[in-house]
Amino acid sequence: MEKSLFAIIMAGGKGTRFWPESRQSKPKQFLALTGDKTLIEQTADRILPVVPPENILTVTDIAYRELVRRLLPWIPVRNVLAEPVGRNTAPCIGLAALHVRKKDPEAVMLVLPADHLIFEEEDFRSTLLYAADLARRTKGLVTIGIRPTAPETGYGYIEKGTPIDGDKAFSVLSFREKPDLETALSFLESNAFFWNSGMFAWKVSAIMEAIERYLPDLHERLLVLEKYLDTPDEERVLREVYEAVTPISIDYGVMEKTDNVLMVTGNFRWNDLGSWDALADIYPRDENDIGGRGLVITVDSTNSLVLGKDKLIALVGIKDLVVVESDNAILVMKRGRSQDVRKIVKQLENKSMKEYL
Amino acid sequence: MEKSLFAIIMAGGKGTRFWPESRQSKPKQFLALTGDKTLIEQTADRILPVVPPENILTVTDIAYRELVRRLLPWIPVRNVLAEPVGRNTAPCIGLAALHVRKKDPEAVMLVLPADHLIFEEEDFRSTLLYAADLARRTKGLVTIGIRPTAPETGYGYIEKGTPIDGDKAFSVLSFREKPDLETALSFLESNAFFWNSGMFAWKVSAIMEAIERYLPDLHERLLVLEKYLDTPDEERVLREVYEAVTPISIDYGVMEKTDNVLMVTGNFRWNDLGSWDALADIYPRDENDIGGRGLVITVDSTNSLVLGKDKLIALVGIKDLVVVESDNAILVMKRGRSQDVRKIVKQLENKSMKEYL
Repeated sequence: MEKSLFAIIMAGGKGTRFWPESRQSKPKQFLALTGDKTLIEQTADRILPVVPPENILTVTDIAYRELVRRLLPWIPVRNVLAEPVGRNTAPCIGLAALHVRKKDPEAVMLVLPADHLIFEEEDFRSTLLYAADLARRTKGLVTIGIRPTAPETGYGYIEKGTPIDGDKAFSVLSFREKPDLETALSFLESNAFFWNSGMFAWKVSAIMEAIERYLPDLHERLLVLEKYLDTPDEERVLREVYEAVTPISIDYGVMEKTDNVLMVTGNFRWNDLGSWDALADIYPRDENDIGGRGLVITVDSTNSLVLGKDKLIALVGIKDLVVVESDNAILVMKRGRSQDVRKIVKQLENKSMKEYL
Repeated sequence: MEKSLFAIIMAGGKGTRFWPESRQSKPKQFLALTGDKTLIEQTADRILPVVPPENILTVTDIAYRELVRRLLPWIPVRNVLAEPVGRNTAPCIGLAALHVRKKDPEAVMLVLPADHLIFEEEDFRSTLLYAADLARRTKGLVTIGIRPTAPETGYGYIEKGTPIDGDKAFSVLSFREKPDLETALSFLESNAFFWNSGMFAWKVSAIMEAIERYLPDLHERLLVLEKYLDTPDEERVLREVYEAVTPISIDYGVMEKTDNVLMVTGNFRWNDLGSWDALADIYPRDENDIGGRGLVITVDSTNSLVLGKDKLIALVGIKDLVVVESDNAILVMKRGRSQDVRKIVKQLENKSMKEYL
C-alpha cells in the first residue's frame, strides 16, 4: 500500500431510474442490486486491498451521511464528507481534494463513482495502481477508459491518441457524448474509442491547478473553504460555498478543456448500471433466460428480470419484461423502456404520492 | 313471489384458474372479481327479488360451508347443503332435489351456478320466471341458452329446434362441446346456436324421474339418503352415498340423453368468468384501455388488466398483460394464456408450496 494514495468514493447521486427500489431516501448507490452488499459497499471493498481505510474518503449528500457511516463503519467518520446541496462532480472533487492535500500535498487521488459494477476486481485494482503511478510520474490528469465490448449508446466515449507504455495508456484526442447506434458501431470497429468510466487518477496538486485554470471561481471559493476546515465554522462556510458555486461536471469543466489528460485502458468488465435495462443485461440467468431474486415461478417465459421481495412472483407466457417488487410498489416494465421509469416518478411527484417516492 | 319456486345455487367449484386470487380455501365463487361482493353473494342477491330466502338453497363443499353461511347469513342455515366430496353436478342437483321435494313435491327448481356474471338482472329474472313457468306447464327439463354475441370457443353450445311461444323457447336439436373457431363462427352466423349457460329450470318431480331413468344408480342412492334426511345419521349416510356415486355432470348424464328438454333463450349479457382472459374482456377500462383495481399508474401502456391489493402497481410500455397481486403472490400473465395458470398451480403443488395454494 502506498501511503500517499487516496481513494475518493463519489456517492452523491439521487437518481430515480431504479424506482421502485431506489427512493429519495435511498438512491442507487445504497441498493444491493447485484448481491448482498450495496453498491457503495462493493466499491469500498473493492479498493480496500490497495488503499488503507484512513485514506478512503467518500463524498455524499448530507441527507445520506448517516447512511454512509452505517454502511462503511470502518472508514473514519471524518472521511465521510457531506455536501449540503448537489453541485455535480467538479465541486465534489474539489472538496475532496482540499481534504486530501491537508493530509498530504503530494498525494495521488483515485476518484471512483460509488454506483458502478466491476467484474474482474484484480484487473481493476492493477489498472488503478498503474493509473496512479502514471499520474504521479507525469502530473497528468488520468482518466480510465474501458475497452468497449458492444456498441453502447448509453455511454460517453474517449478517443485514444498516442500510446504510452505500449497500449496501457494513451494521450486523448477527444471526448464524445453518447453516440447514436451507427456511430457507436463505428467506434466499436475502430478500436480507437473507449467508454468513459468516470474514474480518474491524479495528483491532488495537478487537479487543483487544473481547477484553478479552468474553473477559477470554484477554485477561489475552495480556497476560502480550506481556511475553515476543522474549525467550528466549517459547516457554515461549506454551505455558503456550495450555494454559491455553479454546478458543473469535472468532465465538462476540466477534462474536455485541458491538454494534460491521459487515458489508461481498463480491460475489466464494467457497467455503470444506468437503468433496469442495464441491470437486466448483466444479471445472471437461469435455463429459461430469466434473471431473478426472490421466489419466482415461470411457465413458458423468457428474457426477463424478476426481482421479488415479499411475494411469490409467477410469470405466464412472458418475454422481455422487468418486474420489480419493492416494499410498497411493483414495477412491470417492457425491456428497453427504462428511460420512461422517470415518468412514473414524475406522476407520483405530481400527485404528491410521497410514500412512493 | 311463487311459493313453490326454489333456487339452487351450486357453489361447489374448486377451480384454480383465478390463481393467485383463488386458492384452495377460496375458489372463484367466493371472490369479488367484479365489484364489492363475491360472486356467490351477487348470485343470491340477483335471485332474491323473485325467490324468498327460505326457498333458496346452496350446495357447496363441506370445506366451504361456514364461508357460505357467513356470506349469506339471511339464508336459513339448513338450506346450506354441504357435499362431503365433489361429484360433479348430477349428484349435487339430486341432493338439492331431495331437500326441495321434502318441502314441496310440486315445486319448480331453478339451478344456478354461483360463479357466473350477469349484466341485465331484470332480463335475467324474467327469463328465469318464464323458464319456471314453462317447466311447470310442460314438465320438461328447461335449460337456459344465451344468445351468443361472439364466436366463443370456450363455451358449449345448444342447437335450437322447433320454436315454442314465439322465439322465447325452443326444442333442442343437439348439445355441442366447445367448438373450434371456425365452427364457432358458423354457429354465430347461423343464429341457431346458443351458449350453454348451465342454468336450468324444472319441476323437482321431472328431474327426479329423469335421474331415475338415466342415472338409476344415483337415483337409488338418493332414495336411501332421503330416508335419513333430518335424522342423526344424515351426515354419515350422505358421506357413504357421495363416496359411492359416480361423478357425472347433469348435462352429460341427463340433458344430452333425454328428449324432454327445452331451451329458453336468454338475451341478457352473461359470462361464465372462466379465466383471467374472460375477466379482462369484460372489465371496465380507462382511457388507456387499462382495467384495474387498486393503485395503478401507467406510462404508454394499453389493453391490460391490473388488479392490485397492497402495493402500487406501475406499468411502463406494457400491452396485453394481466397483473394480479394477492396477499402473498403476484401473477404476471400475457393475455390469451389463461389456460396456463394451472401450470403455475401444478408447480406449486409439486413443490408443496402450500402457502401459495
